[in-house]
Amino acid sequence: MDKYMQLFRGTAFSSKSSKEIEILKEHLFCVNPDGMIEKVVAPADADYQLLLDAYEGKDNFHQLAEGQYILPGFVDLHVHAPQWAQSGTALDIPLYDWLNTYTFPLESKFSDLDFAQEVYDDLVGTLLANGTTTALYFATVHKEASLLLAQICADKGQRGLVGKVVMDDPEQNPETYRDADTPTALADTEEFILAVKELSKTTKQGVFPVVTPRFIPSCTDEALQGLGELAKKYDAYVQSHCSESDWAHGYVRNRFQKNDAFALHHFGLLRDKSVMAHCNFLSDDDADLFAETGTAIAHCPISNAYFANSVIPIAHFHAKGVEIGLGTDISGGFSPSLFDNVRQAVMSSRMLEDGVNPALPANNRGVPGSRMTVDEAFYLATAGGGESLSLPIGRIQERYAWDVQIIDTKLPSAKLPIFNEDEDLHDIFQKIMYLTRPENIREVWVQGEKVHSR
Amino acid sequence: MDKYMQLFRGTAFSSKSSKEIEILKEHLFCVNPDGMIEKVVAPADADYQLLLDAYEGKDNFHQLAEGQYILPGFVDLHVHAPQWAQSGTALDIPLYDWLNTYTFPLESKFSDLDFAQEVYDDLVGTLLANGTTTALYFATVHKEASLLLAQICADKGQRGLVGKVVMDDPEQNPETYRDADTPTALADTEEFILAVKELSKTTKQGVFPVVTPRFIPSCTDEALQGLGELAKKYDAYVQSHCSESDWAHGYVRNRFQKNDAFALHHFGLLRDKSVMAHCNFLSDDDADLFAETGTAIAHCPISNAYFANSVIPIAHFHAKGVEIGLGTDISGGFSPSLFDNVRQAVMSSRMLEDGVNPALPANNRGVPGSRMTVDEAFYLATAGGGESLSLPIGRIQERYAWDVQIIDTKLPSAKLPIFNEDEDLHDIFQKIMYLTRPENIREVWVQGEKVHSR
Ligand SMILES: [Zn+2]
Ligand SMILES: [Zn+2]
Repeated sequence: MDKYMQLFRGTAFSSKSSKEIEILKEHLFCVNPDGMIEKVVAPADADYQLLLDAYEGKDNFHQLAEGQYILPGFVDLHVHAPQWAQSGTALDIPLYDWLNTYTFPLESKFSDLDFAQEVYDDLVGTLLANGTTTALYFATVHKEASLLLAQICADKGQRGLVGKVVMDDPEQNPETYRDADTPTALADTEEFILAVKELSKTTKQGVFPVVTPRFIPSCTDEALQGLGELAKKYDAYVQSHCSESDWAHGYVRNRFQKNDAFALHHFGLLRDKSVMAHCNFLSDDDADLFAETGTAIAHCPISNAYFANSVIPIAHFHAKGVEIGLGTDISGGFSPSLFDNVRQAVMSSRMLEDGVNPALPANNRGVPGSRMTVDEAFYLATAGGGESLSLPIGRIQERYAWDVQIIDTKLPSAKLPIFNEDEDLHDIFQKIMYLTRPENIREVWVQGEKVHSR
Repeated sequence: MDKYMQLFRGTAFSSKSSKEIEILKEHLFCVNPDGMIEKVVAPADADYQLLLDAYEGKDNFHQLAEGQYILPGFVDLHVHAPQWAQSGTALDIPLYDWLNTYTFPLESKFSDLDFAQEVYDDLVGTLLANGTTTALYFATVHKEASLLLAQICADKGQRGLVGKVVMDDPEQNPETYRDADTPTALADTEEFILAVKELSKTTKQGVFPVVTPRFIPSCTDEALQGLGELAKKYDAYVQSHCSESDWAHGYVRNRFQKNDAFALHHFGLLRDKSVMAHCNFLSDDDADLFAETGTAIAHCPISNAYFANSVIPIAHFHAKGVEIGLGTDISGGFSPSLFDNVRQAVMSSRMLEDGVNPALPANNRGVPGSRMTVDEAFYLATAGGGESLSLPIGRIQERYAWDVQIIDTKLPSAKLPIFNEDEDLHDIFQKIMYLTRPENIREVWVQGEKVHSR
């Protein structure tokens, strides 16, 4: 009976569907040595008491305290790791200045591995402390520093998917911060892929290389073509930005006489393991192409308020069968927390539904049918992210990884407003989603290993 | 030389104007026994060293640690205190259900003083822990529980402005939760005013009674008239909701053939000490009336995303000379933090400026000129709130109350991403505004007294 590495007893919340929450009240969660959930046992099940008898009192038996709940760890589909050093600054200036005065000079400093170590250490630790168990990262153009980020994820126990950024077009990128030339960009990417694959062999939770053209405007046709070929050769993840803003959308249309989605597809960059950030200006044909190719959208609601000139119609794209998850987009988005982004995803969807300009008549102000519930936004942050990455993560369910966060609603210094002993569990779930602070996240586990506690 | 009750040395941020931040680097802040800032001394000033020599090492000398900064305490202009018990729930349901299934049944429970004590204790403590030093509260219809809230503010050291809610119209309010009748509503309000005034005499930071018609739809003409007379008789604060949503705006127009603002004015409810929540659908004439009467707007950006069908054009109303502050609107807004509301105020303003529907052409999507910087949103949360209440609060400045929060950016468990020893102080200010968690708020002072620390 002690074949399990860990046994947890408590109440968990997970997505039953993209719209509905499943409440697993006082269940047992049996984690095998690979860190996978092998069995979920309800109190009414026959072996519940048998398992309790076998494990209770042992070191690997974890009884959640009253007021504690289990959530799946979050999947952050879009993080610019180096930009953590400028999170929260310069959001009031135009995108062009933001890139050239702040972002590119900062990213160029990651040629310095000591600086990279300091920032990346702090970022990965911060994301774990915010409940993010899997993250899809843009690093910088530097091969070594990008590999260092993958190493830090491996060491700290986070499931990191990391891309060395490609930005090779000398016309579009500053001399101080770009790939030396196209062949170097491609060779560095290939070496990076191989190195991360090697690293992954000794990493329980896995780390993964990601083919990462910054966005079409940064890259030459040759680079885009070569990156598509590398993605195919290694069956690698791909990430980029797609139709984020009026400017970006227009740039690609001018250059290729087609939308971003079809241009990326032309270069072999839309694949089942592709995740494209933002996608606010996707047409219906673009969305169909995403659904056909298995390409996912990384919805970044906080960042979009600053740089995307619009709210992406998530409900519409979801109905079309596109995979969608959430991203912080550090530092276009200021917050390292997907809780904050869940909240903003709901609010932004309400603002799309109702519209924003009170001078317009109500029936001509918004886009009816756009609202998203907090249950749906939670789905994006968890199961939707897992589906986007084609990984068994984001659900508390058999054959999924034990990637979880344990939330304490009764912590004296950060108590949630629960005053009724018998409060409805779905109401408690909503209070957790809206009011959890990093303080309330007491433990974080990835692939059956505890990676954060406080 | 030891005439001051407290002396602080450190770097503070305060508003120079509604658009600009003032940075007081390594200044001395001298607080007198009344809890007022009597003197602010710059390092270059003649008596800086004299003061240091006189106070350094004493118990009442406070040297901020490296990485700590002083901000004014926040002024929350709109809190439904009883609704703290349901914060974060039921935001996905329509307003009518939200009121009738959740809100009114909850508020009616505050006839029970034990329950009121439990919730109000927790709320006032939570707001202080979030840096809110002054709060303008709606309590419930119950006179005793409302007075209890004022008492709790007095005891915990928060500057509380509290209203016993009036909702007397039997046609509009549930039988289980309304004033017994109009004369009772008015008599209870007057008794409440007198009791709070009495309480304030022994309260250093002050507590204040507020005349509080819930909103026009809840009240009979007689009640509105009587409340206007009470406001005048006692020169009391007034609060209500004004033109919040399409429905509320339309209701008042139907009943009075005029907008909310002019209807409230007719009953004597727009005064210099009036604060109206939301105000999204104010016309230009309404805004002019606000400016003339000194009536302030409580902008509640999080709540507005759920219930106000629009984004209020703050920049426009500010330019018209209307006083404006921020409100959490617990629990229409889920967060007890004005930091969260500062962030949302900026994001919502960007969404009003750029618009939300990506299917529309960029030049026909939003309302140009609507964006607000984080410096401006900070002003609303601090100095703007103080002006709205006509109180000397919300600024780190001579003759203002020592109402402050001390932020630690280097706390190991919640470190802000500052990696440069010489980082620009305005960038640090922005990181504080965007990334502070309650954990980072180490001390909160009101009127020269420490009311929270961790
Ligand atoms: Zn990005
Ligand atoms: Zn309200």
